Amino acid sequence: MVKSNQNKSVTIALDAMGGDFGVDIVVPGAELVRQAHPKLKFMIFGDQALIKPALEKYAALKAVSEIVHTDKAIANDDKPSVALRASKGSSMRMAIEAVKDGHAQAVVSAGNTGALMAMAKSVLKPIAGIHRPALASVLPTLTGQTVMLDLGANVLVDAENLTQFAVLGCVFAKAHKGVSKPSVGLLNVGTERTKGPEHVRAAAAILANVEIPGRYHGFVEGNDITKGTVDVVVSDGYAGNIALKTAEGVGSLMGQLLKGALTANPLSMLGGALAYFSLSKVKKKVDPRLYNGGVFSHGGADALGFSSAVKLAVELAEQDYVAKVSDEINHLMSQDSFLSPGM
Amino acid sequence: MVKSNQNKSVTIALDAMGGDFGVDIVVPGAELVRQAHPKLKFMIFGDQALIKPALEKYAALKAVSEIVHTDKAIANDDKPSVALRASKGSSMRMAIEAVKDGHAQAVVSAGNTGALMAMAKSVLKPIAGIHRPALASVLPTLTGQTVMLDLGANVLVDAENLTQFAVLGCVFAKAHKGVSKPSVGLLNVGTERTKGPEHVRAAAAILANVEIPGRYHGFVEGNDITKGTVDVVVSDGYAGNIALKTAEGVGSLMGQLLKGALTANPLSMLGGALAYFSLSKVKKKVDPRLYNGGVFSHGGADALGFSSAVKLAVELAEQDYVAKVSDEINHLMSQDSFLSPGM
Repeated sequence: MVKSNQNKSVTIALDAMGGDFGVDIVVPGAELVRQAHPKLKFMIFGDQALIKPALEKYAALKAVSEIVHTDKAIANDDKPSVALRASKGSSMRMAIEAVKDGHAQAVVSAGNTGALMAMAKSVLKPIAGIHRPALASVLPTLTGQTVMLDLGANVLVDAENLTQFAVLGCVFAKAHKGVSKPSVGLLNVGTERTKGPEHVRAAAAILANVEIPGRYHGFVEGNDITKGTVDVVVSDGYAGNIALKTAEGVGSLMGQLLKGALTANPLSMLGGALAYFSLSKVKKKVDPRLYNGGVFSHGGADALGFSSAVKLAVELAEQDYVAKVSDEINHLMSQDSFLSPGM
Repeated sequence: MVKSNQNKSVTIALDAMGGDFGVDIVVPGAELVRQAHPKLKFMIFGDQALIKPALEKYAALKAVSEIVHTDKAIANDDKPSVALRASKGSSMRMAIEAVKDGHAQAVVSAGNTGALMAMAKSVLKPIAGIHRPALASVLPTLTGQTVMLDLGANVLVDAENLTQFAVLGCVFAKAHKGVSKPSVGLLNVGTERTKGPEHVRAAAAILANVEIPGRYHGFVEGNDITKGTVDVVVSDGYAGNIALKTAEGVGSLMGQLLKGALTANPLSMLGGALAYFSLSKVKKKVDPRLYNGGVFSHGGADALGFSSAVKLAVELAEQDYVAKVSDEINHLMSQDSFLSPGM
């Protein structure tokens, strides 16, 4: 396995034209991460007439950033297939190509998620053996954080895909959470062996018998995500996307109800003011902008949200995520019990 | 269509031996509903040595309740198939049989959900044309409440099942929310036509072309549930169960974080005390015990939770839910565009 090196020099390619706010969130977002990573460098792709003035405010960031000009951008509402066909020379595609050509180790874009997935699949060589990419994110739990994937890249998957997602998630959790043997659960409608759709049960049968860079826990249910029952929650993109967006919705509902309650009358307002500091800590803990690994990094993201995605990219790049995943997937696929589960 | 009658006499069969607390939640739960429904009657099935003393505390409830003794109960952890085979003479089965024999219009049990579904399917004649039962519940939204189904009765469904769930949900929303033409959304991973699994897309194609007792809205995403985008959210039991339990988990996480924040230090405690009244209203709005129609009514329910399930049963019985569903399903299945969607 490749050794990790927290202090190695890492270059991140940034698509400065993605999302609703482009440069306005990309540059301040990058600055938020730069402060904590002295050896970090950026390549910023997009319209230099916009990027240059934005960088003027941050001398230290400017010093470690290279601007690569293009005025072509992928629209947020383009269909992935359309965006892909017309992508040549766009900021998103050029940022991805920087990774392909070895100029950068990771790419971050707040733009069109579907187009980004399609372009990455088309431009980058997939890790050998991995049949499907997955969208991953990090969610807050009672006790810390849970890595969750797939969040919507693949509606239909089979048991083998889910098993690979488990490996991806373990390597991710090791890099992000620093746990040495992450526990992995398969998201399901119950914890009994007989529950759930066939592909989930078949994945469980494989995971019980193979060596992965973590520990297979068994099935978990929706409420286990925020309980922190496991370090990694694996699901197909259908259930994963619905779970994630439902979680966002409930969080937003409760936030709005609370805000309403604490401004309902003068007494409540005073109460809210007195508890402000403690309540802010809760808000920070559940703020989706701080968990912006996957689908959260959509058009509505702001600088803080974008910085979370950049921070994650830096962590994964520093830890040689791709090389480690590649090793672990090779190891997974070479095991007898993977090839013939149940034997 | 059958006319509804809010004041008609309704008898509810209660399984007093279900759940972790049995009689201790069933009797006080029934009392909470009785107060608002003067013509309501109960048949209470279970051990009379437990039920009788519990009823002594509530003279008015005792006066409208008939105890039917049995000391046989279904265990909470029995597998549905096992429970079903050995169910004869159990409180759960006898309560269901009371509905079959016309002595009661609905049955409520806080017991083993899987066993209850299996027994109901086996004992009760299904509504003609309905191929699968569904678990429904009511969830809080920003603007009111959303009816959601299926929450886990059926992992695998087809487009026809989903279409029927849409009809069930509409009739449910009419009875519970009093809306005349409920809007219905299909839970999916995106709102574009081409998104999602085949059975969901096929259901959309049918729903766009048939007459239902509501208005088909289109696809909705996980965050639309609590936004209140539609009156009825329809999904298969796989995604529905995962969404519901994820929502429960996030609600519980935020509740615990808030509680922690408001007891973190004296200032926050004072703040929490001043805002207590407003915060209680929020708590009440999102309290899962108040939305106990479906899977919430499990073993962990308390008297308030049980009373919500009873209240829902009374509403549906008063509104002749079964007859209305039967009419509407007949109407659905007879439409040309149902038989050949897309024509």
